Amino acid sequence: MPVGTAATVKGLTPADLRGAQTQIVLANTYHLWLRPGRETIETAGGIHRFMGWDRPILTDSGGFQVFSLESRRRLDDDGVTFASHLDGSEHRFTPENIVEFQQAIGSDVAMLLDVCVKLPATREEIAKAVHLTTAWARRSAALPSKAGTLLFAIAQGGLDAKLRERSARELVELDFPGYAIGGLSVGESREEMYATARATAALLPEDKPRYLMGVGTVTDLVASIDGGCDLFDCVYPTRCGRNGRAMTHGGELNLFNAAFTRDYDRLDELCDCYTCANFSRAYLAHLFRAKEMLGPRLLSYHNVYFVNDLMREARAAIDAGRWRNYAARDSNCSPC
Amino acid sequence: MPVGTAATVKGLTPADLRGAQTQIVLANTYHLWLRPGRETIETAGGIHRFMGWDRPILTDSGGFQVFSLESRRRLDDDGVTFASHLDGSEHRFTPENIVEFQQAIGSDVAMLLDVCVKLPATREEIAKAVHLTTAWARRSAALPSKAGTLLFAIAQGGLDAKLRERSARELVELDFPGYAIGGLSVGESREEMYATARATAALLPEDKPRYLMGVGTVTDLVASIDGGCDLFDCVYPTRCGRNGRAMTHGGELNLFNAAFTRDYDRLDELCDCYTCANFSRAYLAHLFRAKEMLGPRLLSYHNVYFVNDLMREARAAIDAGRWRNYAARDSNCSPC
Repeated sequence: MPVGTAATVKGLTPADLRGAQTQIVLANTYHLWLRPGRETIETAGGIHRFMGWDRPILTDSGGFQVFSLESRRRLDDDGVTFASHLDGSEHRFTPENIVEFQQAIGSDVAMLLDVCVKLPATREEIAKAVHLTTAWARRSAALPSKAGTLLFAIAQGGLDAKLRERSARELVELDFPGYAIGGLSVGESREEMYATARATAALLPEDKPRYLMGVGTVTDLVASIDGGCDLFDCVYPTRCGRNGRAMTHGGELNLFNAAFTRDYDRLDELCDCYTCANFSRAYLAHLFRAKEMLGPRLLSYHNVYFVNDLMREARAAIDAGRWRNYAARDSNCSPC
Repeated sequence: MPVGTAATVKGLTPADLRGAQTQIVLANTYHLWLRPGRETIETAGGIHRFMGWDRPILTDSGGFQVFSLESRRRLDDDGVTFASHLDGSEHRFTPENIVEFQQAIGSDVAMLLDVCVKLPATREEIAKAVHLTTAWARRSAALPSKAGTLLFAIAQGGLDAKLRERSARELVELDFPGYAIGGLSVGESREEMYATARATAALLPEDKPRYLMGVGTVTDLVASIDGGCDLFDCVYPTRCGRNGRAMTHGGELNLFNAAFTRDYDRLDELCDCYTCANFSRAYLAHLFRAKEMLGPRLLSYHNVYFVNDLMREARAAIDAGRWRNYAARDSNCSPC
């Protein structure tokens, strides 16, 4: 899922997203709650109409964002109160109002409010986050459902195998249509992340989506698919795109490198996207050096296309029983 | 002509430009000379291949930009020496090397190097600029021609009717394929600009393009078409687009006005462009408030489409003998 935090994947239109083979985009409840706010999106006819995207939209609950605020939020057993990063105004998220918000704006997949712990943390802190996350999930499960909006729960537990297991088991008992693995890709080592994601995914139902949040690079995606995860979101492709970093079959390229100013080859020899089909590395390098906004746009498009293509190829490889070969080939791509 | 100074119309792809009904774009010799430089564009296969645009490209000579540098340039009878605004490096433009550069990169229309005077100026200063502009045009006319590149001369003369007449007559004697009216839209009053453009256009051949440089707004375009001008360039549509100003059939709108955050109407009731067909004013207002780059992109697209549509309608109205009616209707649109 390309990330469209504020109801827009940075620099790309819905037509671009389709062209780049996007099946679903992510938007963020924390950001949409603050701006433009529920009323604007509801009056516009919902999030799909508002942003002009008629394929699925998953909205993150904003838990991750609120807990990132640290000194600007107060957690209690019933929810979390925080100060807006935009204007300092006070807001409160509860397991109930977060689901209601996402239902009201017409999300296809609404993430439950979870409690994210910044790592490293004590076992006690992580255990408390797991406890509250389950309690909140139970309250969310008891809410009236709304046709068209599926609720996904988020398993927590840091890097603690026992707590991860407890969180996954308790949430699975509540029988949600899908599950996410949260609280990873937040600074731990690659090996810790892969091991925890793999172990948690194994505890989640195989017939429901298993969504690893905040991942990622080609290497991370391939390792996590191998670990049993199905769904991913990350700002990585668009953020790299805005900053001159191209994800290619030959590894990542920094278009600010002087060599590219005289490199008339296509950006990625094996890519058929609009950017690769129409522009040379030299032209893209020129755009970034001249700080022209077409550079970030064309490169974001390519990177989103590239990751969607990777996922398409991964599905095909799994279907054809040749996943091991595919994974061995692609995990050579070096990350940023 | 939408302005693509550095071989890119800001934020728009060649596919967008076609979608927005663009027939020809402008690029700038001053900027391309400094970055990426002649060799890069030549090696890429010319300016069309480099920027991925296969319709006509007119390149301005850079005279206007160089003379804007003021203290950073030295004019002599043979050319002008200046310091780059990018790195202070010294460069020299002559009537010859400017034409050769534009021929080398494959411009369809190459503007001659002219001498632009900042207004207000003394009659003597303007007379000297006219004298040099003609002398330089004579030297340019004597150069070997290159198939595919047409040379357009630029008439100068400030707001002085006699000097404008002298400049136009001297250049017309040299029999170029097209003529521009330069040195206007630089701070003089609307009435002075209209009167001078009209008087100069009347001295230029009716069967050749008469290009009024640096115009403009809807009001200026309609008045200048009425005055006999055929071709225009201006950063206005894209600059307004980047800054939240929409050119519409109902006049210009500033999308930062609070009212638009709850306005679910289409941007321009009478426009069929991608932006108007897919997004509300509320969504566009949200993008600008959230500083999302999709806002400048969508609004630049609309504004370019809008101006191209105006020109298309103007041509149709002239062809159908109903120009007077059309001009009377459209000149009500208030400029920025």
